[in-house]
Amino acid sequence: MSLLSHFIVFEGLDGSGKSTQARRLASSLASQGKAVRLTSEPTDNPIGRLVRDVLQHRVVTSSKALALLYAADREDHLSNPGYGILKSLDEGQVVIGDRYLHSSLAYQGVSEDMDFLKTINDFPLPGHIIFIDTPVEECMRRIEARGDEKELFDKLEYLKAVRSAFLEVFATLPPGVRYLRVDGMLDADSQARQVEAFLNL
Amino acid sequence: MSLLSHFIVFEGLDGSGKSTQARRLASSLASQGKAVRLTSEPTDNPIGRLVRDVLQHRVVTSSKALALLYAADREDHLSNPGYGILKSLDEGQVVIGDRYLHSSLAYQGVSEDMDFLKTINDFPLPGHIIFIDTPVEECMRRIEARGDEKELFDKLEYLKAVRSAFLEVFATLPPGVRYLRVDGMLDADSQARQVEAFLNL
Repeated sequence: MSLLSHFIVFEGLDGSGKSTQARRLASSLASQGKAVRLTSEPTDNPIGRLVRDVLQHRVVTSSKALALLYAADREDHLSNPGYGILKSLDEGQVVIGDRYLHSSLAYQGVSEDMDFLKTINDFPLPGHIIFIDTPVEECMRRIEARGDEKELFDKLEYLKAVRSAFLEVFATLPPGVRYLRVDGMLDADSQARQVEAFLNL
Repeated sequence: MSLLSHFIVFEGLDGSGKSTQARRLASSLASQGKAVRLTSEPTDNPIGRLVRDVLQHRVVTSSKALALLYAADREDHLSNPGYGILKSLDEGQVVIGDRYLHSSLAYQGVSEDMDFLKTINDFPLPGHIIFIDTPVEECMRRIEARGDEKELFDKLEYLKAVRSAFLEVFATLPPGVRYLRVDGMLDADSQARQVEAFLNL
């Protein structure tokens, strides 16, 4: 198993607060003088933009094609000679990811075959995964409050299945990956303190 | 094994003459009053356009990401609710494809793991495959003569490896798939006659 020890991934539903925590950790590390890169998936690179086109219904395709596009975006995000995560890690940066492959397993796993998803997402694992676990109803309330355009995945029953799938994949992580579940109903400061304690900061 | 009996695929190197033969067959079938659809990969749909952006160096990514993009384009080409090949076949059309999954196995197989390529290209097979087998040097001469912009794959040694890979995958086709190799040095009329005889037209 290939493991990227300086790659720290935040996972969770939209509206869970994971992006806030990813940003806070990036700021905290930077303020300590660490070289840090904050990045997210789907990316803003060409493949990631096509993924967003699908999520926002500007492009219509099948669920399996979307799963393959996510994997292509992730492979590019990791390995691109210009901006790949592997390159940043090689240069000594800490990379903080807002979503990574477990999002694909959880979201696409609701409709697509899990063995197929695992094969196309056979990428190196992050050293640390932090799951911001916020009740689905609360996530939906926050998404609505911020007036975000609804994407494909913003439906209650679907999101409940996605949360269950997240818990299942995190319960079966290989032993080398350090994992933390954070209660997303805690205030942001408390969450950030748990994250920093977990990472020994 | 899932097999699409009314899906006829032409394979070969760029410059082999396969597109000419695919067009001729489509005309011939149409002139007999058959409902026929001529289509090609990479497609002109959004994912296929991104594949072309990579081939023509407008977008830089890894070889593995390109393989995943090809598979996503192919899945969309097959299953798209608007324009999918499966839909055309259901409507009773004969579908003629200019390239399909064996192009991915042959071209990407030179750099990527074959088991991975086969897994991401685990799509229904065409009922008929026609390989227009033209020597690499002749293909390159024709590509140059028509002044096409060079794509990623237009290199002699690489193309020789691709031709070998084509022969290998075609030598191991499952028994239900009907396969014809046509000598691409024959004149176009002779090739077309061989194709029509093979298809019992």
